[in-house]
Amino acid sequence: MKLSELFLPIVKDIPTDAKIKSHQLMIRSGMIRQSAAGIYSWLPLGFRVLKKIEQIVREEQDFAGAQEMLMPTIQSADLWKESGRYDGYGLEMLRIKDRQDRELLYGPTNEELITQIFRDNVKSYKSLPLILYHIQWKFRDEIRPRFGIMRCREFLMKDSYSFDLTKEESNHSYNKMFYAYLRTFERLELKALPMVADTGPIGGDLSHEFIILAETGESQIYTNKKLLDLKISDFKNDKESLKSMVDTYASFYSATDEKFDQVEFDKKVKKEDQLITRGIEVGHIFHFGDKYSKPMNAMVNSSTGTNTTVQMGSYGIGVSRLVGAIIEANYNNNVMKWPKSVTPFQVAIINLGKKNDEICKKKADKLYHLLNEKKIEVLLDDTDESPASKFKNFDLIGIPYQVIIGSKQAENEYEFKEITSDKINLSLDELVKKIENLYLN
Amino acid sequence: MKLSELFLPIVKDIPTDAKIKSHQLMIRSGMIRQSAAGIYSWLPLGFRVLKKIEQIVREEQDFAGAQEMLMPTIQSADLWKESGRYDGYGLEMLRIKDRQDRELLYGPTNEELITQIFRDNVKSYKSLPLILYHIQWKFRDEIRPRFGIMRCREFLMKDSYSFDLTKEESNHSYNKMFYAYLRTFERLELKALPMVADTGPIGGDLSHEFIILAETGESQIYTNKKLLDLKISDFKNDKESLKSMVDTYASFYSATDEKFDQVEFDKKVKKEDQLITRGIEVGHIFHFGDKYSKPMNAMVNSSTGTNTTVQMGSYGIGVSRLVGAIIEANYNNNVMKWPKSVTPFQVAIINLGKKNDEICKKKADKLYHLLNEKKIEVLLDDTDESPASKFKNFDLIGIPYQVIIGSKQAENEYEFKEITSDKINLSLDELVKKIENLYLN
Repeated sequence: MKLSELFLPIVKDIPTDAKIKSHQLMIRSGMIRQSAAGIYSWLPLGFRVLKKIEQIVREEQDFAGAQEMLMPTIQSADLWKESGRYDGYGLEMLRIKDRQDRELLYGPTNEELITQIFRDNVKSYKSLPLILYHIQWKFRDEIRPRFGIMRCREFLMKDSYSFDLTKEESNHSYNKMFYAYLRTFERLELKALPMVADTGPIGGDLSHEFIILAETGESQIYTNKKLLDLKISDFKNDKESLKSMVDTYASFYSATDEKFDQVEFDKKVKKEDQLITRGIEVGHIFHFGDKYSKPMNAMVNSSTGTNTTVQMGSYGIGVSRLVGAIIEANYNNNVMKWPKSVTPFQVAIINLGKKNDEICKKKADKLYHLLNEKKIEVLLDDTDESPASKFKNFDLIGIPYQVIIGSKQAENEYEFKEITSDKINLSLDELVKKIENLYLN
Repeated sequence: MKLSELFLPIVKDIPTDAKIKSHQLMIRSGMIRQSAAGIYSWLPLGFRVLKKIEQIVREEQDFAGAQEMLMPTIQSADLWKESGRYDGYGLEMLRIKDRQDRELLYGPTNEELITQIFRDNVKSYKSLPLILYHIQWKFRDEIRPRFGIMRCREFLMKDSYSFDLTKEESNHSYNKMFYAYLRTFERLELKALPMVADTGPIGGDLSHEFIILAETGESQIYTNKKLLDLKISDFKNDKESLKSMVDTYASFYSATDEKFDQVEFDKKVKKEDQLITRGIEVGHIFHFGDKYSKPMNAMVNSSTGTNTTVQMGSYGIGVSRLVGAIIEANYNNNVMKWPKSVTPFQVAIINLGKKNDEICKKKADKLYHLLNEKKIEVLLDDTDESPASKFKNFDLIGIPYQVIIGSKQAENEYEFKEITSDKINLSLDELVKKIENLYLN
């Protein structure tokens, strides 16, 4: 893509209403624009990142054996009356009446709808275990939306739902999702700490939040530094190993202020290991047994022919919120550096040649076509802006690798720079090999 | 994927409320389930088809130089008051009040929102031409939703918006989309006829509908048989050639009953070329000049420094509706055959061996793993159902190619069958080569 053609409205000044750095960057780099209070449009740059995160979330759900489907955004209120949550959910639920005066709502979550789908379509234990998920827009009518897409009203969530015959199998589904979440956040180069959490309006007996460490986070967290050293590659993907993994994580004290207990913290964590900081919730998983399946009669025939209420769990990841969390973790000293896995473009070519410098232009175009042919996603700066302005823009765009082309270079010489690192000079061959190694292997 | 693990609730009987064949098939083959009146959930089989269609639509938009973004589902009513459409849109617009009593709505289309985004972010003619698009769920509160996802309330639409400085350039954007639409429908193996259409609530001076021929279609159409013989490969992707393409298509009489004129029809089309049938609208494109940009003040600086109101067009494809249209075109005599480009799985392996037939099982598993390794999407029937029942299920699932494994075959013999054609016997090597030729070349 050529920068002159990309719809990328960059803003030079920090918007006054943007209090945290992810909100500032997303406005300044033209990733999003607010369309109504707490409701955002994703412009091409932001959309590219969002889609890549979504795809990683999807691949790890598929890897865990979950099956993708898609439930609608608008639900019938009747379902929520069946589960008993309609009245209790409060003002955060966007309630709607259609032209026939039927009560609808914009789904804030999907436990009821998926339970209905399961109940109407699955009859036998042979169809279990089953994990279904979808990635769909949700709406929560926040009283005070703020922090850009971090605390907005319309947001993209991945939510999975597990169905099992027994509590033990249901716990295994929970562990599989726990593992999938750790793998997902690792691919996003985020350090996510699981911590025991309140179950809130979802309900149930077991719940973990996944929290990204960030000073600008909304929750105070109290944890054990040693938790940061655990490696998911130490655990295998089988029933026993996954159980021991969850037990290992759970053996370290870790809590948000909601669940924090000073006495327990001091008892379980040595002073030198205590880590008190802030964090951003990016995932939340719940085991809630028959909380929905019982009132909604979601039952299967067991192998002995008796009707059994299924055991369920639900598992959410804030896909759009992850964009903000990744920025909070990677935007420092006014320079953004996207992780390779989700960067909107893989390589930037910055042509510093003057408007009529045909040699620079030819060099830039040649590299651009070469990388495009190799399916490397390139953003070529072909504009007439000043070098200083170009570098400032690319500090906001955050592409991790830059190739700089200028009139003082030799013919077969290119400046290559990992953002925030020093530049090196490479020949075309070396350069292409370097980029291939970064992305294609 | 193994059929025993796939969430695929097949229904043996034709649902009584499903009047058209696409609705019947989608319920019977477990592609969709209704969640509320005119609101559907997409189960895994339906979801896979939907995503593939979406991807083809996306690729052709990108090829035409349109840039993808994503606008939210919920919009502010204020915008629609600016354009003057809020009061006139009628009961089909789902109007919502949030907890602060602000007027919102579920977007039925996005002319206003994209015009606002353009107005706030583009200042110079140098940013033109610009085509932006998104693929997002829309809601129209149909008084009588019916025919499954063909006339539902929540539906997936691709909508593009073009911005140009002059009428002439704007017409070129229109022609580019016209071409992209023909290419899109061709990849879906659909015969789509463009016809001059009313502009309705979108407005403007020029508009074409793209209509798929289908006896169960909602619109009566009057056209010239010769239009079916035009080939888009005869036209090149440059300004002149695209103009001549649109002119060529426009030179044939073609109209829905809304615009039909018997006298003109008889004058322009020879009796033997007259084709009167029914069709399904799957796309609709509009050129409307300054209809939105003028009241909403969407202007750019021209090269001479004067403020100029931009010329706009909008271009919609019914992505979810296309699933139904493809079924109407390809589901005959109770057998569905998906086009290769959107089939939910590329190959079916149907193991007819009895429950304990280890030889058949081994053979099926071997082929299954081999094809999976080659990234061929396989659905392996590993269930205990009877052969008759298996074939009936696969007539509904509609995978175009089947490999049948049975106990009477030689060790290195496989039955290969294109659905609705005769079967042939192939060795493993021949079989794999055949499948690779179908999908990987």
